[in-house]
Order: sequence, then structure tokens, then C-alpha cells
Amino acid sequence: MSVENPYYSHEFHGDYDVVSIGRLDLEEGGSIPDCRLAVTTWGELNEARDNAILITTWYSGTHQIWRDVYVGPEHALNPDLFFIVAINHVGNGLSTSPHNAPDEIAMSRFPKVRISDDIVAQERLLREHFGIEQLQLVVGGSMGAQQTYEWAVRFPDKVLRAAPIAGTAQNTPHDFLFTEALNAQIWYDPGWNDGEYKSNADVVDGLTRHAHLWAVMGFSTKFWKQELWRALEFDPKDAFLQGFLEPYFTVMDPNDLLAMAWKWQRGDVARHTGGDLAAALGRITAKTFVMPTDEDMFFPVRDCKTEQEHIKGSRLRVINDVLGHLALFGIAPTYMPQIDQHLGELLATDV
Amino acid sequence: MSVENPYYSHEFHGDYDVVSIGRLDLEEGGSIPDCRLAVTTWGELNEARDNAILITTWYSGTHQIWRDVYVGPEHALNPDLFFIVAINHVGNGLSTSPHNAPDEIAMSRFPKVRISDDIVAQERLLREHFGIEQLQLVVGGSMGAQQTYEWAVRFPDKVLRAAPIAGTAQNTPHDFLFTEALNAQIWYDPGWNDGEYKSNADVVDGLTRHAHLWAVMGFSTKFWKQELWRALEFDPKDAFLQGFLEPYFTVMDPNDLLAMAWKWQRGDVARHTGGDLAAALGRITAKTFVMPTDEDMFFPVRDCKTEQEHIKGSRLRVINDVLGHLALFGIAPTYMPQIDQHLGELLATDV
Repeated sequence: MSVENPYYSHEFHGDYDVVSIGRLDLEEGGSIPDCRLAVTTWGELNEARDNAILITTWYSGTHQIWRDVYVGPEHALNPDLFFIVAINHVGNGLSTSPHNAPDEIAMSRFPKVRISDDIVAQERLLREHFGIEQLQLVVGGSMGAQQTYEWAVRFPDKVLRAAPIAGTAQNTPHDFLFTEALNAQIWYDPGWNDGEYKSNADVVDGLTRHAHLWAVMGFSTKFWKQELWRALEFDPKDAFLQGFLEPYFTVMDPNDLLAMAWKWQRGDVARHTGGDLAAALGRITAKTFVMPTDEDMFFPVRDCKTEQEHIKGSRLRVINDVLGHLALFGIAPTYMPQIDQHLGELLATDV
Repeated sequence: MSVENPYYSHEFHGDYDVVSIGRLDLEEGGSIPDCRLAVTTWGELNEARDNAILITTWYSGTHQIWRDVYVGPEHALNPDLFFIVAINHVGNGLSTSPHNAPDEIAMSRFPKVRISDDIVAQERLLREHFGIEQLQLVVGGSMGAQQTYEWAVRFPDKVLRAAPIAGTAQNTPHDFLFTEALNAQIWYDPGWNDGEYKSNADVVDGLTRHAHLWAVMGFSTKFWKQELWRALEFDPKDAFLQGFLEPYFTVMDPNDLLAMAWKWQRGDVARHTGGDLAAALGRITAKTFVMPTDEDMFFPVRDCKTEQEHIKGSRLRVINDVLGHLALFGIAPTYMPQIDQHLGELLATDV
């Protein structure tokens, strides 16, 4: 039985369409009989169908943060110039996910889905639904960066430019452990009941502890030291947790978070090349800007730089933001100007 | 009722004495009627009683790691030259702690103890038991650094030199959150039973998850990226967790860990000066080497440097170690030479 969850609705995520791409056979075996992807677009696809940009989404995220923060005529992701498509990844609650799937694959029965399955699904959607064969840019943050890398390695001819923000092509051992610790907060809540809860509210304790781990790792030590939560109009820091991180995560579906985490942990483009990461990254022909955040606690600049050095003609563009990984939320007024500068330059680069 | 725990014994911690310092009245109210401190010494106290060095202990740690790694004739902490005293802090399992306290303050009834209470207790023990009025050096890592700072601020005339390693004088908001996440792993284990378990084995799930959080924060991202657990003869990384971190923590007492964590979270020398950290650090007359570890995930160099700049005549001596905070275990062969170099220079400095 799937469960009701009002968070995954138009009320919280504005306009989007849910498009079926049919049966999706999965790399780990099994399939999603009727895979449905939630899609949002901005701007108009031109007649040549060659002005499209793809946005991928992150762990716990949807297209909505991109609408609120990243996309608009004042930004590099400008709907007056491009046809911009945001596709919500499988498991994020808007696309097919454990909490909303048909009974045979709902909840604890949801199959294992990889980043690579997402990219197969997204390519099919773009081609069959929109007739798009090539993308001017693929851009995404965190797990969206993992998807961006998978796109550029799997479909090099289809990706002209790539901008992975705050994420890696091959997940690190440290991130695997961090994600496992996030998962454990859910697994060890008795309300989780091996994935067969009646409502996400049954798992509110686990989701709250999960939010608290994001407080430790999602921001930087400098963010806390400088007491920047005060600038966000929360004080004391407990109010920041209770007013921001806890409500952000506790409305979400536990099985959906676990499905995304499983993908995150195993993201690895080197699966295309028998484990040879340099060879996999060497396949990329997209003009690529690798954009880590300087204060990121779990996708540190050096891990992103090591990968960037294997990508021909790529550039490392470090985002300075004391918020750390969750700079992605675009809270700091200095964040979007940096993103726009780099994406603007990338989009202006001939390929 | 206290509980039996064979880990806190001579079998695991070698020679030590347990010395009563009598009743310890606590800053938060209440008291420990018969406060007993576990003490180890190396070398001989000279007639003038002026060749003493004090070692303080860290969260989950005892004097034993200092015996195994830091103290010896080949080290700066040389028992041929100094009388070296290691005092186990309250709650660490060897000194008075929730699991071994008399019934009226055992387990969930253990009173709140602050770092400052520890230093009052340690000063009394040194003075009354050994007749030591002044220390050539106070040195400790992590929570031991917190105690070192408290010593230097509270008893400036008694501390000639100070070496806080990988710790801060005023705990940071980020570390409060990290510690709270560690605590939560214990609190939400049903076996914890509000602190009234029958054996630490009842809380093995919580202690295991607690160990896993140390895997995320205790080492550095670089440690994991470089797969350095292989150099420690563990492979794959799960074996490192199961063979090292899990057995390290699961033998410990949950209430003891929580008592130490409560102290860690609230360590703050600025309590002496109405919240003015600069004024508190300005009281220090000890020659001080502040020694953070470059890859520390939760006591970053910059936090330690900010404090160091308020200490007259102090020096910042950064330890390079890819292990991060748990460099303190002295696993890397390059670690102790750095410690010995800095402590040797500090001890050779006229004061």
C-alpha cells in the first residue's frame, strides 16, 4: 500500500507534469512497470529543438528550488533564451517513488534504482516526449551533479556542456558512510517498521535525527562559528533547527529518502569502464565546469578537482560560500551571482 | 545500581591508582560525595616538587593511550626528566563515573559535571596527594585540550606551559551539534532505557551507530578517499569499522559517554569572564603552543587559531595528519615526531 503525503503536491511544488515513459528495466534487476517522471519546463523549445537545458535534482530536492532560486530572466538559466527542463529523479517523491508507487512495488517492495537508471529514463523522456536529441547544458547539484556526470559519460554526443555543482562522478567512501548514518536514523526508528509505516509521521523521530545530522554535515563549521543562523532570522540555533531543518525533512517520506540515498551511495561513472574512473571521465566531450563549494564538508574541493583533471578541456570553478554543501539552497546573497557568472560563461562558450 | 563493565579495569588500562579527593561540590549544583580519580604516573617527583607534567584525558579515552603512544624516554614526555601525572577525568569510566558510582548518584542519577569541576578536582589531587603546586606543562588532546585551557585560565600561576592539542577553549556550536548527534544514537536505543540498562551490551545498537558517526567525523574525507584503512591492515572499509571503531566504542558505558559529552558540549573558559573569551584567554600566563590538526573535521585549525591569537606569546603549531581528529591515536608514523618536536621545543622554552 502506498501512503498519502501532502508534501508531494502542487501546493508545495507548483506547476509540473507527470509523464509516463513506460516500463523501465533496472540495472540491478527488476523494473518499474510504468515509470512516471515529474517534469517542469520554462521557456520555449525552438523549431530545431536545439536550445534545451536539462536540470537534474538532488537528494530530498525537487525542481521547486530551481524555480525559486536558479531560473529566471535575470539568471544564466534564462527561459527567454533557452528551453529549460527540470526532471525530478526517481524516488524524490514527485516522480515514481516508494510512497506513491503501485502496490506491487510500493514501500519496502520498491526496487533498487541507480543513477544510471535515472539517466536512461531521462534520455527517453526528452527524446520521446519533447523530441530533444541534444542538450546545450546539463546542470545539477549534489546528486544532481552525479546525474550530470552520468549523462556526460553515458551520452557524450548528447551533452554539449556540463556543470556538476557540489558533487562527484564517483561517490567517495566517506560519503557512503555519511549517507549510511543518515539512513540509520530512519532504520532504527521503531515507527519505520521495515518500511511498512502508515504515514511518514510514524517516523518523525528518525526524520528529526536525520535532519540533525544534516545540521552537522550540511553546513560548514564556519557557518556555525559565525552564528550565521542569526542572519537567517533564527535565534538561538535551536530555533534554526526547529524552524528550518526539522520541518524541511520531517514532511518527507522515509522510504523515498532511503531510495535516493541508495542511489547516492553507489553513483559511479567508472561502472562504464570496468572501474577505471580516468577512462570514464575521459569519455566526456561536453565542455565541463566542475563547481565544488569551498566549505563543503563532504564533497570537498580536492575530491572534485581530482575528477576534473581527468576531463578534457574542463575548468574548476570553486564557489565560495560559508554555508557549505547547503549553499545549494541559495541563501547567501553572494551565491547566485557566482553561479550565474560561471554558467553564463559556460553557456557562452562555443562547443 | 551501578553496572559491571570489565573494560574499565587494569586488564585494559594497565597500572593506575584510584585516589579519593573527598567531596566534590559541583558548579551546576549537587556534589560527588567521594570523588575518586584514577591516576597514573611515570618518572619521579624531585625534591623541589617542580618537575611535574599533567596529562589530561579525552572523550572515551584514558591514560592508557598516553602510555602506549606519547610517554617514554624516546619522547618529549620523558619520565627520565619529568614526573608525569595522567589524571582520568570524571565520567571516563576509571574515575568516578555513572556506571561505577555509589547507588545514590549512579547511572541516570549522576550529577552534571563540568570541565571546570574536573580542574578543581585535579588541582586538589595534585596539591593534597602529591604536594605539587606548579606544573611545568599541562597537555591534553580534544576534551583534554578543553581541560588544558581551563587549567591555564583558572590557575594561571600554576601552569608554566600549556599544549592544547586538537581542541578549543570555548566549544563551538558545530561541536555541540555533533556531540548531540552522538548522544542521540544512545538515547534512541530502546535498550538505553533512560539510563537504567543492566549492561552496556543492552545498548550495543546505539553504541554501534555512535561508532559509525565517529567514522564520518573522526577521520578526514582524505583518509577515506585515500583508502588508508588498508594501510591499517583492514580491508574493505567495513572491516575497519567492524574491527576497530565498533569494538572500541561498544565496550564502553553509555552513561559514561553521555556524562563526558555533556561536559564537552559546555566547555567554555569565558565563563570566568562573563562570556568574554578574549579576556579569559588574556589571563593565561603559560607559554602556550596551540596544536590543532590540519584535517580535523570538527576542531578546524581556524577555530583554534582564533583562540590562539588571544593568548599572549603563544604559538600556533599545526599538526599535519590525514587521519583528522583521530590523529590523536598516533597511528600515522609521522604523528609522534611532530608532537615530540613541538612539546620538546615548548619544554625547552624558558618561562
